[in-house]
Amino acid sequence: MPHVRVTRRAHFCSAHRLFHDDWSDEKNREVFGDCSNPNWHGHNYVLDVTVEGSVDPVTGFVMDLKALKEVMNARVVDDVDHRNLNLEVPWLEGIVPSTENVAVAIWERLAEGLPDGIRLQSVRLQETPNNSVEYTGPGEG
Amino acid sequence: MPHVRVTRRAHFCSAHRLFHDDWSDEKNREVFGDCSNPNWHGHNYVLDVTVEGSVDPVTGFVMDLKALKEVMNARVVDDVDHRNLNLEVPWLEGIVPSTENVAVAIWERLAEGLPDGIRLQSVRLQETPNNSVEYTGPGEG
Amino acid sequence: MPHVRVTRRAHFCSAHRLFHDDWSDEKNREVFGDCSNPNWHGHNYVLDVTVEGSVDPVTGFVMDLKALKEVMNARVVDDVDHRNLNLEVPWLEGIVPSTENVAVAIWERLAEGLPDGIRLQSVRLQETPNNSVEYTGPGEG
Amino acid sequence: MPHVRVTRRAHFCSAHRLFHDDWSDEKNREVFGDCSNPNWHGHNYVLDVTVEGSVDPVTGFVMDLKALKEVMNARVVDDVDHRNLNLEVPWLEGIVPSTENVAVAIWERLAEGLPDGIRLQSVRLQETPNNSVEYTGPGEG
Amino acid sequence: MPHVRVTRRAHFCSAHRLFHDDWSDEKNREVFGDCSNPNWHGHNYVLDVTVEGSVDPVTGFVMDLKALKEVMNARVVDDVDHRNLNLEVPWLEGIVPSTENVAVAIWERLAEGLPDGIRLQSVRLQETPNNSVEYTGPGEG
Amino acid sequence: MPHVRVTRRAHFCSAHRLFHDDWSDEKNREVFGDCSNPNWHGHNYVLDVTVEGSVDPVTGFVMDLKALKEVMNARVVDDVDHRNLNLEVPWLEGIVPSTENVAVAIWERLAEGLPDGIRLQSVRLQETPNNSVEYTGPGEG
Repeated sequence: MPHVRVTRRAHFCSAHRLFHDDWSDEKNREVFGDCSNPNWHGHNYVLDVTVEGSVDPVTGFVMDLKALKEVMNARVVDDVDHRNLNLEVPWLEGIVPSTENVAVAIWERLAEGLPDGIRLQSVRLQETPNNSVEYTGPGEG
Repeated sequence: MPHVRVTRRAHFCSAHRLFHDDWSDEKNREVFGDCSNPNWHGHNYVLDVTVEGSVDPVTGFVMDLKALKEVMNARVVDDVDHRNLNLEVPWLEGIVPSTENVAVAIWERLAEGLPDGIRLQSVRLQETPNNSVEYTGPGEG
Repeated sequence: MPHVRVTRRAHFCSAHRLFHDDWSDEKNREVFGDCSNPNWHGHNYVLDVTVEGSVDPVTGFVMDLKALKEVMNARVVDDVDHRNLNLEVPWLEGIVPSTENVAVAIWERLAEGLPDGIRLQSVRLQETPNNSVEYTGPGEG
Repeated sequence: MPHVRVTRRAHFCSAHRLFHDDWSDEKNREVFGDCSNPNWHGHNYVLDVTVEGSVDPVTGFVMDLKALKEVMNARVVDDVDHRNLNLEVPWLEGIVPSTENVAVAIWERLAEGLPDGIRLQSVRLQETPNNSVEYTGPGEG
Repeated sequence: MPHVRVTRRAHFCSAHRLFHDDWSDEKNREVFGDCSNPNWHGHNYVLDVTVEGSVDPVTGFVMDLKALKEVMNARVVDDVDHRNLNLEVPWLEGIVPSTENVAVAIWERLAEGLPDGIRLQSVRLQETPNNSVEYTGPGEG
Repeated sequence: MPHVRVTRRAHFCSAHRLFHDDWSDEKNREVFGDCSNPNWHGHNYVLDVTVEGSVDPVTGFVMDLKALKEVMNARVVDDVDHRNLNLEVPWLEGIVPSTENVAVAIWERLAEGLPDGIRLQSVRLQETPNNSVEYTGPGEG
């Protein structure tokens, strides 16, 4: 059966701040600019998760998108939507929540939650209409 | 000369929270849901400002869009982008920063900053792709 | 308190067909073109519902958008999503499901489902990225 | 029968320049900025034309959108797409092709081309994702 | 000459249904959910076809996009637009019209219709704004 | 550290024309169609530049997006925005400004402007909503 990539999109709205708490406000501002604002700011994130596998000859599905949506909600979206990425997400603890770092952490959350035979192919995370990142896994180093 | 409406779009990213500090967390959550999260959340707001006036026969402009952009930046965007709408915006002090209230406050900021002959016609503020509000001024009551 | 318009967007995917069953296939094709295809076709409809009211001084809301979403789901979206507009929607029975007619029918479904003090201002229905209609109620005749 | 507004979207790609040929290059640049570049620049314009009328009880249409599309193509799009708005469009001769002026000219082209009973309600012209204008006719002065 | 990928987007509106006719309605609903509705539903599909080749030193084109558009229309879009994917498309006969299966079938339609020197690189098919698939050919298994 | 791809989007508005000046107008029109119009036409180009590198463990960035934006502005956008791609851009001299050729030229402009450790991964250039190209560098031949 052919291998196909399937992408499911989700949205979440979060607050965050880029900073190191052992740096001065000045140093944080110098490195992170407005993104270090101590009073936080936030974004409507757009998350595109792509999985790959062979098409099931009976259903015509690589993976039921309802199942993928549920994994994404249970392991990612429910934890971050209307939350503070610095303070409230156990799997982001100790991480500067740059778009890059959040995408890598989302990869790790999802890679272990997928059914057999389904390969996580890409996590794409858009922070603003002009800024986005894509992580395709540790094999790419 | 014909009257035309001109719309300029801007974007800003802010943190906010819907709550009353004289209410319990439970009451805030009951009324405002996830939007009352004490650790904040945030959005990529999309702001569409529409002005109306007669077309200048020499320039073909109702209003130079660069000038409108500068007014929007100086009186609104610079104050809210990468800021916390509850804590850092003088003209939102004491206001629950619902999309409705922020749109009305932006109207007031802009109405007094426009050149003679230009009427502010509409402030449209989109909080998420599915939720937006429009305020067309106090005359509509 | 200021009057503000609030818009909530929803999506639904439906099959439909434009035809009169007392017309020949040829006449249906002549009037309705490909839209009369006897084997149906379908669309991802985008529905924007705008309501208007005064801003509640306590909540900052014209209307809780969760409540508006629930009315839209209960009275419209649940009836039409993944359904056939000609065969399965009681409130479209006997109506050619043109975008115009569907928008008017949605207006009627929603106008009677809104809380006191909230005026339905507009139903906008997009059938394709290039084709949309807007109905603002019977008063406009 | 209810009155409904129907919108058809079209796209065209044109070159233009904002300038007066009896002004110096310096004066043109001072007033029109980069838009006065003597070597032209261009845009992907997005045109939304809205008409209003009562819904035909037989077809369910205000106006057949294929007919509206043909009027828009014959009277507007075919004249401006892949053309120079300053040099090649008879109905823009002698006009500074600002978005405002082009929208007003498009209104005039379309108002006289519509069938009886159909009122042109709005011409909306987007020059860039952030800049657009809307003209709703001479009655609004 | 450099190798470049060129993407052409097309749209089509179709009805479909996911089901096996040797299964009961209950089993079809259990596996395919609302997508198995016996009265059909439909979508505005967005199709992105990407081809790859070396840039012609005279024209600057990998492939004339008008020619690619014509191949896409003649071999795909004309067959599926305003059609029923289960009943009316010879090259989908006997196939559950999941997005995956339709994308693979479109690949096969296009791979044999392209000029020499042009490699079909990807068929991306979006069923809804949140659901899409990509097929990059049989070599990837 | 993980390798991540980071994409920054920019916009520019330019005039251009596809033609060879040693060909007749007829031949140019035959090969390039409306794109050869001697009076120019233009587009709102959308440019997506993707770079790849390892995530800096201190900042969480592959590359500061402000720095990427500045490189893109200084080496590309400032040269082409509100300009004529045939007449005014030194690094496009002698090149038919097809989307393919412009994307390759942009690649060359950017590849030499990036900091150590950052690999240019892709230049994607959209000329219209339906037409785009992607160049991933000379290694792909």
